[in-house]
Amino acid sequence: MTEAAATAAANAVREDRLWARHMDMAAIGATGDGGVNRQSLTPTEAEAWALLARWAAARGYAVAADAVGNLFVRREGTDPQARPVLTGSHVDTQPTGGRFDGIYGVLAGFEVLEALDDAGIRTRRPIEVVSWTNEEGNRFQPGALGSAVFAGVFPLADMLAVRDADGVSVADAIADVRRRTPVPSRGTPGFPVDGYVEAHIEQGPRLEAAGRTIGVVTGVQGHRRYAVEVLGEEAHSAATPRRARKDALIAACAMVTDLAAALADEADTIRLTIGRFRVEPDAPGVVPARVWFTVNLNHPDDTVLVDCVRRLEAIVEARKGPCTASVTYMTGRAPVAFAPRVMDRIRGHASALGLASMDMLSHAGHDAMHIARVCPTGMIFVPCLKGISHNPAESATPADLAAGARVLAATLVEMADAD
Amino acid sequence: MTEAAATAAANAVREDRLWARHMDMAAIGATGDGGVNRQSLTPTEAEAWALLARWAAARGYAVAADAVGNLFVRREGTDPQARPVLTGSHVDTQPTGGRFDGIYGVLAGFEVLEALDDAGIRTRRPIEVVSWTNEEGNRFQPGALGSAVFAGVFPLADMLAVRDADGVSVADAIADVRRRTPVPSRGTPGFPVDGYVEAHIEQGPRLEAAGRTIGVVTGVQGHRRYAVEVLGEEAHSAATPRRARKDALIAACAMVTDLAAALADEADTIRLTIGRFRVEPDAPGVVPARVWFTVNLNHPDDTVLVDCVRRLEAIVEARKGPCTASVTYMTGRAPVAFAPRVMDRIRGHASALGLASMDMLSHAGHDAMHIARVCPTGMIFVPCLKGISHNPAESATPADLAAGARVLAATLVEMADAD
Repeated sequence: MTEAAATAAANAVREDRLWARHMDMAAIGATGDGGVNRQSLTPTEAEAWALLARWAAARGYAVAADAVGNLFVRREGTDPQARPVLTGSHVDTQPTGGRFDGIYGVLAGFEVLEALDDAGIRTRRPIEVVSWTNEEGNRFQPGALGSAVFAGVFPLADMLAVRDADGVSVADAIADVRRRTPVPSRGTPGFPVDGYVEAHIEQGPRLEAAGRTIGVVTGVQGHRRYAVEVLGEEAHSAATPRRARKDALIAACAMVTDLAAALADEADTIRLTIGRFRVEPDAPGVVPARVWFTVNLNHPDDTVLVDCVRRLEAIVEARKGPCTASVTYMTGRAPVAFAPRVMDRIRGHASALGLASMDMLSHAGHDAMHIARVCPTGMIFVPCLKGISHNPAESATPADLAAGARVLAATLVEMADAD
Repeated sequence: MTEAAATAAANAVREDRLWARHMDMAAIGATGDGGVNRQSLTPTEAEAWALLARWAAARGYAVAADAVGNLFVRREGTDPQARPVLTGSHVDTQPTGGRFDGIYGVLAGFEVLEALDDAGIRTRRPIEVVSWTNEEGNRFQPGALGSAVFAGVFPLADMLAVRDADGVSVADAIADVRRRTPVPSRGTPGFPVDGYVEAHIEQGPRLEAAGRTIGVVTGVQGHRRYAVEVLGEEAHSAATPRRARKDALIAACAMVTDLAAALADEADTIRLTIGRFRVEPDAPGVVPARVWFTVNLNHPDDTVLVDCVRRLEAIVEARKGPCTASVTYMTGRAPVAFAPRVMDRIRGHASALGLASMDMLSHAGHDAMHIARVCPTGMIFVPCLKGISHNPAESATPADLAAGARVLAATLVEMADAD
């Protein structure tokens, strides 16, 4: 029965409706150049929530928001005591954002709820569509703040105290938007959920390049950024013998060369990038006294990242020569592996619907990386034009968006009926 | 007889007179902070020449200037047909120059002429003190312009046509200063000379550090500067596999590392400096698309420099990986070796006068590097405080200046009496 329901739900997804909802949402915060500026916990974002709430009210879905601003739209299941299955993403954008990043996951989830209604399908578990607070991390840091609090990654009180550049706290911003558009309270963030599936544009060119419609996301790549500083001594280029020099550039280049060799894994999974590299005093006739460079490391396995850092530190020490050198942690994110069971379902439904899929790692962070801590989680990627995102030129086709929503519908029905 | 005359000439050098002449000259173009601004072919420089001409007139020495502005003060020899021995340096300074760079060589030479008079010594060959035009290369490029024309390195017409930043040509500037302070004409630059010795402050810290008074300059180090450009491709640090990258920084660092290893000569004579190194777009999350760096090579032997360049080109080619790369010549100067016979004389007279000396290469260019093309040439360095030059803080002691003049006197007497 579930299989038939899953197929029926997928078939009830309406491409025209889903696209129209995207265009309605894109009008809220439209920048006039095709882009959207709908930053976190602003009146503009509240207007988008209000529109979503009106659509929900028309269908009779309950809407509520928790204390960190995460907004939930609930379609009841046949067993109201069962833990819900969640789907969603975020409504906020970068200041120069596009029409699909984040909002697609929310609207695809909402389209599933409507498709279930239209197809007359009842699921055992409730299905909830969530809009997580401050995913972009532009107005408030860290990004993915709402999902992090929901999953217990950061304490609620700490995050409510975070302030934007104008000194406005998350708590004050939430209070302000609630005054404008009141929403019933869902209380303290975090409640038992049975699973989570997030649909999102890829924000990369791989699906487009491979000619596939569905990305089965296997996890979110981990990331660590370090700064290496090498301190030597200024000296006259013509006058100072090599053995009397402390050449920060020669030492730094040796470090980079060794590091590139050491991390050149056969599988080509480690991503090593030295993107910023600065030399002082940067004069042709002066031996460099200081080099400062960043080391970005990305890999899906944190034990590999830890090993890369150990090698980085050893190489910096071994290659500093007569200089002094230091390695400093700047920022990072632990890798996340999504649930194989959820990936299997997504892959299977894509196949059943005749959609070409491929497994892929997410290079960027998403709310799903936090929710994966509390329940079986997966993500569905759909193609976006040339991989462009965080840009007014961000683009996706109605057909691809609908295809992702169909796979989401089938997957959610299966998860909502599973034991 | 020559040996006795050489000693008598050295002993007749008067430290107080030489110092007073330095202070008189330092008043012309004095900047008020201890420095001197006496740029090439300006009324200020002409004023300094006029003062020198008055001193010369008081001694009965002939003064004349050639067509490129080089000024000669001649003390006749017993054989007026004999080719003269030259000594001197330059009167011009950098805009923020000091009291000793250049002018010391002119005043030490003039002191020798006066010392010979005072000691009643007649030399067989004439001795001429020269002030070369535009050594500093600040107002007009190239530097050492007057000595280069004298030695036939550049054609007179080309150098007369060189213009300063205001569009004034060398020809116009010479005509202007000649109107202010007329000087008899010496005609077209270049006449047969028997030898040339130039005294100069070291402009480096080696004599001071070694506790020596006299530097026996063995030559002027050669210099070549190249630019290396490596062109790769921007790529996302988290998303792009290593094998799909064209990482300009990894390639450039491999080049630097290989080059440093290849040019690490056991004798530690090659000077390799990568002083400017720029990365674009210089963002932590972006694989560098372009690196541009300078390679400075210094060595006293041009065949070694040529070999270094050959190795540079081979390494750039071998290490460019998936990038494209180019090596471009920027600027340079051939090395000059001074005449062993002149060095022997300088070294011998320093020893005879009880002055500690050391052989040393000049890292900077001097007029002597050009004159070495047309006659046996040498240079005498004296210490300057902390090696500081081209700076109001430039400083030398009266005793060191006089010591250098004594060695110069003895050397010139010997050269002027040699067959």
